[in-house]
Amino acid sequence: MSLSDPLTFATDSGALDRAAHLRGEAETLLGRSEARLVPFWREKALIDVSEERPTIGWQGSELACEAREAPVFLGLWRGAPCFAADLSFLDEEAARLGFAPEAKFIDLRSVAAELTPAEAAILATAKALLGWHASHPFCARCGASSVPEDGGWRRRCSACRALHFPRTDPVVIMLVTRGDEVLLARQSVWPEGLYSLIAGFMEPGETIEEAVRRETREETGIEVGRVRFVASQPWPFPASLMLGCEAEALSRELTIDAEIEDALWASRGAVAEALAGRHPRFAAPRRDAIAAWLLQAWVEGELGRW
Amino acid sequence: MSLSDPLTFATDSGALDRAAHLRGEAETLLGRSEARLVPFWREKALIDVSEERPTIGWQGSELACEAREAPVFLGLWRGAPCFAADLSFLDEEAARLGFAPEAKFIDLRSVAAELTPAEAAILATAKALLGWHASHPFCARCGASSVPEDGGWRRRCSACRALHFPRTDPVVIMLVTRGDEVLLARQSVWPEGLYSLIAGFMEPGETIEEAVRRETREETGIEVGRVRFVASQPWPFPASLMLGCEAEALSRELTIDAEIEDALWASRGAVAEALAGRHPRFAAPRRDAIAAWLLQAWVEGELGRW
Repeated sequence: MSLSDPLTFATDSGALDRAAHLRGEAETLLGRSEARLVPFWREKALIDVSEERPTIGWQGSELACEAREAPVFLGLWRGAPCFAADLSFLDEEAARLGFAPEAKFIDLRSVAAELTPAEAAILATAKALLGWHASHPFCARCGASSVPEDGGWRRRCSACRALHFPRTDPVVIMLVTRGDEVLLARQSVWPEGLYSLIAGFMEPGETIEEAVRRETREETGIEVGRVRFVASQPWPFPASLMLGCEAEALSRELTIDAEIEDALWASRGAVAEALAGRHPRFAAPRRDAIAAWLLQAWVEGELGRW
Repeated sequence: MSLSDPLTFATDSGALDRAAHLRGEAETLLGRSEARLVPFWREKALIDVSEERPTIGWQGSELACEAREAPVFLGLWRGAPCFAADLSFLDEEAARLGFAPEAKFIDLRSVAAELTPAEAAILATAKALLGWHASHPFCARCGASSVPEDGGWRRRCSACRALHFPRTDPVVIMLVTRGDEVLLARQSVWPEGLYSLIAGFMEPGETIEEAVRRETREETGIEVGRVRFVASQPWPFPASLMLGCEAEALSRELTIDAEIEDALWASRGAVAEALAGRHPRFAAPRRDAIAAWLLQAWVEGELGRW
C-alpha cells in the first residue's frame, strides 16, 4: 500500500455518473425497466454474497413502493438509473421482503474493502444520503415537516418552503511525525490495543491547517509546525469528509486530554508490525480507513519528510 | 500577492485561542469584567471606524442581556473572553443601542481585507456560528425547539434531546489551466464583466478530486486530469469551507451549463490586467476571495505547472 493505492470509498471520476441534470426526473427514471435499487436497513446495505467477491444486492425498482419516502437517485451506473431506499422502519424479518437468501444486510465497514472501488463509492453516497434524510425529517428553520425533492438531493419545508441540502462534515486527520516517530492515540471505547491517528471535526472559521494544529494541541499538547494536505476520503459514518494531512511536530512531551484515553510516540518499526497484524500489543486502524493508508505511506518513506 | 501571502479569514493558529475546554463555563466567563462582546445585526458586524484602520467594535458583556439567546463564546483573545451576540430581531434604530457614532454595522466582505488577519478570522467564526443558530432554531430530527449549549457550540433539542453541531459546507474551487490559459466563468447575477473560477458544493460520497472533476464537467464540459489541493479558506457566507485546488484541463471545447451564464479561457496577460483593475472588459474576483489569490499565484508562475 502506498500513496498511489486507492483509498476505500474514493474512486476515479466516472465510476458513477451522478447525472445531476436528471435529478428532477428521478420519478420517471425509477419507472424504467432497467432501473435498479439497493435497499438499506438500519445503516446496513443489501449485499449479494453468492459469489466469491461480494457485490451490491441490486433489486428491481418496484421495491420503491415498500419505502416510506421516495428512493434517492444515485445516478447512472453501467447505463442504468440507480436508486437507494431506506427500509429501516420495518422489523428485520419484514425488511427481508422477497430477497434471495444470498442477499444479506451488511455493515458497509465490514464489506467495503472487498467490493470494487466503484461499488464501495456508490454505497458510501447512498448511505450518507439516506442517513441525512433519516436524521433530518423536520425543518431546522421552522420545525415543520420537510419532504425530499430533486431525486433526494434536497428537502423542502412543507410550511416555510426553506430548502435544506445534505450535510457533509469536514474532519481533519493527521499523521504527526517527529523524526522516525509518529503520534498515535486511542479512545477508551475502541477495541483493546487499537491506536490510530489524531482526528477531529473542523469548526466554523478554521482553515485545515488551523484545525490540525488545534486538535493536535487539544488532544495531546503537541505543537505542530508545517502542515501538508495529502488526500481526502468520504467516510459516511454518518457524514464525514476525511481530510488527511501530514504535520510536523515541534514538541515531544505529551499532555493527554480527557477526550482520549492514551497517546504515544510509535516507531516506524512498531507501526509496520501493527499494520501487518504482528505487533504483540498494538493494533493498527482498519485497512479501509485513511489512517491506515497514511501510516503505511509513512512506513514506506513516502510521508514525514520535512 | 503569492502563495506565501495570507488568505483573508485564515490566520496562523494562536490568533484566537478557541479554548474549547472553557465552553461549558461560558456563562461564568461572560460575567468577568474583562469579557468583551461583538454584536452582529443582520449578518453585519459592529466595526469601529474611528481610527484609520477599522477594528472590531467590542462592547462590554452587559450587552448580552439585549440578545434573545445566550451569546456565543468565541474563545480567548489578548487574555479576554470574547463573545458574539445577534441583535437581528431589533430594528435598525434599536440595534444601535448606546454605541458610539464611530461604530457601524458593516458587511464582513466590505471590511475583512482591512482588518488585521486575527480580527477577520474572529469575525468569520462569529458570523458562521451566529448564522447557524439563526437558521437552526428547531430540531431537524423531531421538529421541537432546540436551545444553545456549551457556549453556543452545539444546540440540544428540548424534546428528544438530540444534539446538533454547527454546519460547515466544503466547497471546491479550482484553477483549471491549459498551458497559458485559465478557465473562468460567470453567473448571471454577478456584476457585469466579473469572471471567476469554477466552484461548487461537495456532495456526499465524493473526494475533493472527484468534486473538482464533476463540477468542472457539469458547468463547462471540460474534462480534468490531475488535481492538486493548494489551500483552504473559511468563507462564512453563510458557512463554507473553500478548498482551493489547481487542475489540469484535458480538453478545451466549452459546453456551458444553465447554472452559469458564460465561461471562457483567459490568457495570463488578461488575468493580470483584470487583477490590477486595468482590463477594459473583465473584472477579477474580490481580493479577499481565494479565487483572486489562486489567480494571482498563477499569474506569477507559482501554479499551473503540470
